[in-house]
Amino acid sequence: MDLKKQGLNKDKNDSLKSFKSKFINNDNEIYLDGNSLGKLPYKTILDLENVIKKQWGENLISSWNDHWLELNNLINHKMSLLINSDKGEVMVGESTSVNLYKIIHALLESNEFNKALISDSLNFPSDLYVLDGLKNLTTKNKIKIIKYKDDIKCDLNLLKKNIKTDPGIYCLSLVSYKSSYLYPLNELNKVAEENGSVIVWDCSHAIGVTEIDVKKSNIKIAIGCTYKFLNGGPGSPSFLYVSSDILEKLSNPVRGWFGHINPFDFSNEYVPSSNINKFRAGTPSILSLVPVNNGLDITLAAGIKNIRKKSIDLGNYLIELIKNELSQHGVVVASPMNSDFRGSHITIQHEEAWRICKLLISGYKKRKKVIPDFRPHNNIRLGYAPLYVGFFDLFETVMILKSILENKEYLSVDQSKKTVT
Amino acid sequence: MDLKKQGLNKDKNDSLKSFKSKFINNDNEIYLDGNSLGKLPYKTILDLENVIKKQWGENLISSWNDHWLELNNLINHKMSLLINSDKGEVMVGESTSVNLYKIIHALLESNEFNKALISDSLNFPSDLYVLDGLKNLTTKNKIKIIKYKDDIKCDLNLLKKNIKTDPGIYCLSLVSYKSSYLYPLNELNKVAEENGSVIVWDCSHAIGVTEIDVKKSNIKIAIGCTYKFLNGGPGSPSFLYVSSDILEKLSNPVRGWFGHINPFDFSNEYVPSSNINKFRAGTPSILSLVPVNNGLDITLAAGIKNIRKKSIDLGNYLIELIKNELSQHGVVVASPMNSDFRGSHITIQHEEAWRICKLLISGYKKRKKVIPDFRPHNNIRLGYAPLYVGFFDLFETVMILKSILENKEYLSVDQSKKTVT
Repeated sequence: MDLKKQGLNKDKNDSLKSFKSKFINNDNEIYLDGNSLGKLPYKTILDLENVIKKQWGENLISSWNDHWLELNNLINHKMSLLINSDKGEVMVGESTSVNLYKIIHALLESNEFNKALISDSLNFPSDLYVLDGLKNLTTKNKIKIIKYKDDIKCDLNLLKKNIKTDPGIYCLSLVSYKSSYLYPLNELNKVAEENGSVIVWDCSHAIGVTEIDVKKSNIKIAIGCTYKFLNGGPGSPSFLYVSSDILEKLSNPVRGWFGHINPFDFSNEYVPSSNINKFRAGTPSILSLVPVNNGLDITLAAGIKNIRKKSIDLGNYLIELIKNELSQHGVVVASPMNSDFRGSHITIQHEEAWRICKLLISGYKKRKKVIPDFRPHNNIRLGYAPLYVGFFDLFETVMILKSILENKEYLSVDQSKKTVT
Repeated sequence: MDLKKQGLNKDKNDSLKSFKSKFINNDNEIYLDGNSLGKLPYKTILDLENVIKKQWGENLISSWNDHWLELNNLINHKMSLLINSDKGEVMVGESTSVNLYKIIHALLESNEFNKALISDSLNFPSDLYVLDGLKNLTTKNKIKIIKYKDDIKCDLNLLKKNIKTDPGIYCLSLVSYKSSYLYPLNELNKVAEENGSVIVWDCSHAIGVTEIDVKKSNIKIAIGCTYKFLNGGPGSPSFLYVSSDILEKLSNPVRGWFGHINPFDFSNEYVPSSNINKFRAGTPSILSLVPVNNGLDITLAAGIKNIRKKSIDLGNYLIELIKNELSQHGVVVASPMNSDFRGSHITIQHEEAWRICKLLISGYKKRKKVIPDFRPHNNIRLGYAPLYVGFFDLFETVMILKSILENKEYLSVDQSKKTVT
C-alpha cells in the first residue's frame, strides 16, 4: 500500500479520531505546534465564560470558597490520576521555572544528597538558567553540564557513569525539546537510586503524550508545564510532583500563604502544609488555571496509553514519509528513529530551515498552512498532538515540504525574524 | 444636613460616578470587598473573549509574537504611568509572594545593605512567611518583627528608631491589611536612605487607591498585587518595581527564560536582561494577565488623585456614620481616624464580628446584601473602592448594621465557618 493510502487508512481506524472535534480547528491549516502551545478545546471556552462572568463577575469573593480553592484541589487530583501518584504528591500552580527553582533549592538544602547539581546539554535552556542561579548552594559552587557528541540523543553510558561517579541532584528533560529524545525513565531512576542520586524530571515535552507512571518508574520528582500537550492555554501553570517519602524531608524556600497549613487563619507564624501544598506560594492565578481542568479531562478520557500508541504510530509514519520523500532534498531527521526513545515531535534539519518555516506558515501558493516551529539554527520541529493531528495531516505536510524543496521555493523568501519562532 | 442627605448629595456631585457603570454590578448588593477581589469590568469580558477565542483558539502560537509579548510590555508601561516610574523599572508577572522572595533574596545577596531583615506586626502574614524563608541569608539568621502596642497603627518613633539603630532591609505593607493604616512614605524613605536602609513596600492594599509616586516619595522597591483595587481578577499577577539606580546591583535568584536578555535565542548561557525584565522568570500566565490591562486603563482614566480624594471622602463619611449610628452598640473603629494615615478600607470591631458578617452577606430580612470581609477574630473590614462604591452605599450599610445590632439579630446565626472569610 502506498503511503497516502496508508495514512488515510490509519485515520479511518484511529480509535482517537473523535477527539479532534473537541478542539477549535482552523480549516486549511495543519497545526504541528501542540508541543509549544496546545489547542483550545470548545468546552474550555464555556468553562472560562462561567468563571469570568458568573464566578468572578457575579459571585466575586465568595467564589474562592465556592469554587476556586476546590478547583485547584480537583486539578491536582486529576494530575495525580494522569501520573499515577498518590493524592497530596502533586500540585498545579506557578511557572515551571519557579517550581524548578523551589524543588532544586529544597533538595540542595535537604542534606539528603550530595550538593552537586548536574544536567546535560539536551536540557531546555531555561532549566539550565534556573540551575545556574542555584550554583552557590552546591559544594563546588558550579553546575556540571554533561555534553554528548551531538544534540540528538543522550549517551546513556556516559550519563550512567556520571550518576555513579558523581552522585547528586540531576535535572533532565524527559523529552528533549530539540530532538524529541526520550530518556529511559526506569533504567535511569534505578541507577540514580542505587548511587544516592535523585533525578528531577522536567516533563514539559512529555506530559500528555508519553506514559508517566511515577510508581512504576520510581520517579521521585517531576515538574512540567501544562500548556503544551495538556492544552492549558498560554502560560498555564506548571505541575510539581514529589514522592511522599522524600517530600517530608524538603522545605519550600518560597514560603507564601498558600503553602501554609491554614492560609486563612492569618497566623503570623509559618507552618507548612504537610503534603505537596507546602510547595505552593502565592495566590493561584485562577483564569490561567481553569483550562487545565478540561485539558486533563480530555487526556484522561482518551487514555494516556492510547495517546502514546497513536503518537508512536504517527512518528513512525512521519519518518517513513520523510525517508521516502524528503531525504533526497537534503532533509535530515534529527530525532531518534527508535520510537522507544522518542517523544511526540520529530525534528528535521535543513540549512534553509528558517525560510522553509516561513513558507510553511504562510500557506504559499494557496496550499494548506502548516504550523511547525523553528529552533536555531537549522531545526524544524514537527509536533504531532495525537488528540488532534491525523496521519493524513502528516502526509500533506510532507508533500508540501517536498514541493518547497524540489523547487527551492524558499529562495523567494526574506530572512527577517520575529521574536518567538 | 443629616447624614443621609449628605450621602445622596455627595453621590450627586461625585466626579467619578460614571465609572460604576463600567463594572458588572449586582442589584441588591453592596460590595465592600474590592480590597480583597476587585469587580469585573465589562470591557475585560470582551478582552478575554478576544484573547481566548481569537488569539489562543484561532491564531495559536503566532499570538506570542503578535500580541502576548507586547501585552506584557504594554501593561508594564501602564503600571509605570500609575506609579510615575521610568519604563524598565516595573514589570507585572508572577505572584506577590514570588516577587517578594526574589527581591528580598536579591537585596540580601547584593552587599548593598546590612544583612538584616526587619518587618513589623502590621505586615501581611504571607510577607512575613516569605521573609522567614530567607532568614538564613541574614547575618543573625533571623528576622526581626517590630511589635507595636496595638494592631491598628504603627508607632512611628519606634519604627524610625529601629531604622536608625538597626539598618538593613525593611519590608512594610504600605496600607496594613488589618487596620488600613497608611505609612508616611516620604518620611520613612528619607530616614531609611539617611541610615543606609532600604524599605520594600508591599502596596497590595494601596495600589489603585492611594497616590504612589515613586519619584516624589523616593521609593526604591515596591511590590503589590493587582487583583484588589486594580480589578485584575482572581490571582492576577503582581507587580515589581525597582529603582534603576539599585536595579543594576541586584540579581534575580530565579533565573527563568523570560528574564534572559534574548529568551528565544535558546542560548545555554544565562545573560540577564538589563532592565526590570531580569526579575521575570517563567512564561507569563496570559489569561490571568489580560484583565490587568483594562484594570489599569480604568484607573488611569479616572486619575489616581481623583480616586484618592474620593476614597478619603468616603472614609471620613463612613467614620461619621459609625460614630453616630453604631458606637452605642459596641462597635469600635479600628482604623486611623486621620485620613492621611488611612487606606481605602475601614475596620470595625465587635465581639460578634463573624456572625454579623454572615448576616450582612445573607441579605437577612430581604435587606440588601452587604459584602464585607471578616478577619479573625473580631474584625469586619469595609472596603470602599471609589470606582464603584458610592456614599449612599455606605449609608445603607451602616443602617443595616444598626438593625442587626439594635435587635441582636446575630444571635439567630450559627458560628460555622468556610475557608475564605
